[in-house]
Amino acid sequence: MAHLWRGVLREYADRLGVTDASTVVTLGEGGTPLLPAAALSRRTGADVWVKFEGMNPTGSFKDRGMTVAVSRAIDHGAKAVICASTGNTSASAAAYAARAGITAAVLVPEGKIAMGKLSQAVAHNGRLIQVRGNFDDCLEIARELADNYPVHLVNSVNPDRIEGQKTAAYEIVEVLGDAPDFHFIPVGNAGNYTAYSRGYREEAERGVSTRVPRMFGFQAEGSAPLVRGEVVKNPETIATAIRIGNPASWELALEARDATDGYFGAIDDDRILAAQKILAAEVGVFVEPASAISVAGLLDRAEAGVIPAGSRVVLTVTGHGLKDPQWALRNADGSDVQPTVVDAATSEVASVLGLTADPAHGAPAEAKA
Amino acid sequence: MAHLWRGVLREYADRLGVTDASTVVTLGEGGTPLLPAAALSRRTGADVWVKFEGMNPTGSFKDRGMTVAVSRAIDHGAKAVICASTGNTSASAAAYAARAGITAAVLVPEGKIAMGKLSQAVAHNGRLIQVRGNFDDCLEIARELADNYPVHLVNSVNPDRIEGQKTAAYEIVEVLGDAPDFHFIPVGNAGNYTAYSRGYREEAERGVSTRVPRMFGFQAEGSAPLVRGEVVKNPETIATAIRIGNPASWELALEARDATDGYFGAIDDDRILAAQKILAAEVGVFVEPASAISVAGLLDRAEAGVIPAGSRVVLTVTGHGLKDPQWALRNADGSDVQPTVVDAATSEVASVLGLTADPAHGAPAEAKA
Repeated sequence: MAHLWRGVLREYADRLGVTDASTVVTLGEGGTPLLPAAALSRRTGADVWVKFEGMNPTGSFKDRGMTVAVSRAIDHGAKAVICASTGNTSASAAAYAARAGITAAVLVPEGKIAMGKLSQAVAHNGRLIQVRGNFDDCLEIARELADNYPVHLVNSVNPDRIEGQKTAAYEIVEVLGDAPDFHFIPVGNAGNYTAYSRGYREEAERGVSTRVPRMFGFQAEGSAPLVRGEVVKNPETIATAIRIGNPASWELALEARDATDGYFGAIDDDRILAAQKILAAEVGVFVEPASAISVAGLLDRAEAGVIPAGSRVVLTVTGHGLKDPQWALRNADGSDVQPTVVDAATSEVASVLGLTADPAHGAPAEAKA
Repeated sequence: MAHLWRGVLREYADRLGVTDASTVVTLGEGGTPLLPAAALSRRTGADVWVKFEGMNPTGSFKDRGMTVAVSRAIDHGAKAVICASTGNTSASAAAYAARAGITAAVLVPEGKIAMGKLSQAVAHNGRLIQVRGNFDDCLEIARELADNYPVHLVNSVNPDRIEGQKTAAYEIVEVLGDAPDFHFIPVGNAGNYTAYSRGYREEAERGVSTRVPRMFGFQAEGSAPLVRGEVVKNPETIATAIRIGNPASWELALEARDATDGYFGAIDDDRILAAQKILAAEVGVFVEPASAISVAGLLDRAEAGVIPAGSRVVLTVTGHGLKDPQWALRNADGSDVQPTVVDAATSEVASVLGLTADPAHGAPAEAKA
């Protein structure tokens, strides 16, 4: 029997420089399942595994970095953390700040706010501040506050975030016994792409793995600065978690791509949604649209003949489908999913399900009730 | 370093009768964090821990039982699983059926369906069938199908569900080194109350723990058949996951209460929502309203003087806040939460946050970008 997971700072204390004197603010993040994906292996001829990061405490991989960033903020005497974010970063920052007993300030630009995306930040008592300006103004104010007040910036520019996120690569190497041949991952700010590259490199340098995987990163067609090689002024995609036109970790990501014989590709929104459906319906893993781009990217590259048969492939899916569940209720043609309606008769339901009577397959004994 | 969690059937193979010949359908459920809750300890004088079951693959504790139920369904030759459910059970059944490559049929009664609550079942390709009848008609049809067709019923009456769910008690004993003095838990069908009682009893019988906790179960005021001692015809509560007027495990739960010197209490919706806020804002754990009743129940019993100072208390919180996030956006008076709006000036944001300039607390070095 396993002992139970204690969060990345405790599980990887030696690797993350945690001592007995260090503050540890944890919600039990990390230690997420790495699931074999037989349906994707059949579709591609590769040996495909899915790293299910939606099973982190706030439903996304951000928690791996936030436990490090907030813990170190406490050790630096911060009374608050601040971020400019309308999504997963704000949710994670607010949760870890609540856990630590400090304030999380969340700056969002003026204009219509999707409050649903901010429900977690609000639940965790994040101070939601709408700035009369754009996202860049929010980030600039956050930086200035962090420079001049007892406030810690926890946006992607904080290097503690990447330090925490690299632990996912450690876990993959532990489960598989070596690094995979390819790693597929969504790319927004490119911090996670950078983090996995670093984690894999460290494992190879330690001699725990024999190789570093080729890092394949994917951006949405309407938000693909790394693919285009230029900033995208008004990025557009339904994959909101990676709708970023000017990635914070641009140069680090290019270095990682070159060092690993990697690749950046772009995928349109329809293929992202199709991949989301395949993953939920055939593998059993429900993710937010941005996460499904890993699957779409694999299908794209397999079709292009780039993935040799039998290659070991790991896909990171970054956020839970519950983050943005409305897409599941849309058919591919854009219409709403509707239930089949039947009369209250067993035979009708059996007929809808295409079942033939077979009394030999009875139900198991029922609980005493 | 831990080895990574492999789901309850593999981690507890010996306890759950799993052999090399057994089918294992898993999404990595179980192994959820047991988090010390300092804020609740301060409020109650007890030593309070929270078992965060929202971190299961589909966002609720149902996955612990569903991995067992669906795996055994496959071994019994089932071509489909069926349930009557509009919530967490349907989400879990559809996910595990998808993982197993079989059909999940989800029966829902006629009338307005909250499709948002069914988004997970739809995402995982559950066959959503709306029956012209009420919930009891749905359950009756599901039972008849299971008796006469190659279909496995995975509602709460399936005893495999409780077998899987009891593993949460094993995990708690492992982390704490013994069972707690009290265990607080939401009660709907009372299957989970029964499951924890069984798990704790098994650990005591094995000699791994020295005691069985007093099992304290809580129902919503408008849906409290176990407290009232009679079926509630039209249960009403915002805690939809426990809105059940005629619990499937009624007798088993009464036995467990009596055997553990336990208790059933009722909590009104306002106190449930207040407890949800306390847990998210002070402990960092965001749960759906039904889960927060464990916290409300503890506060209620502590106030009643029933919990001796220093008692070790575990609260199960059953489902993730992302299951039903809208409640987080409501203030206690029922109004909508609104952000504070400020001009794009650092000093304005600092003022809102009540911060005083202190350049000594500068930001950490930024990532190379």
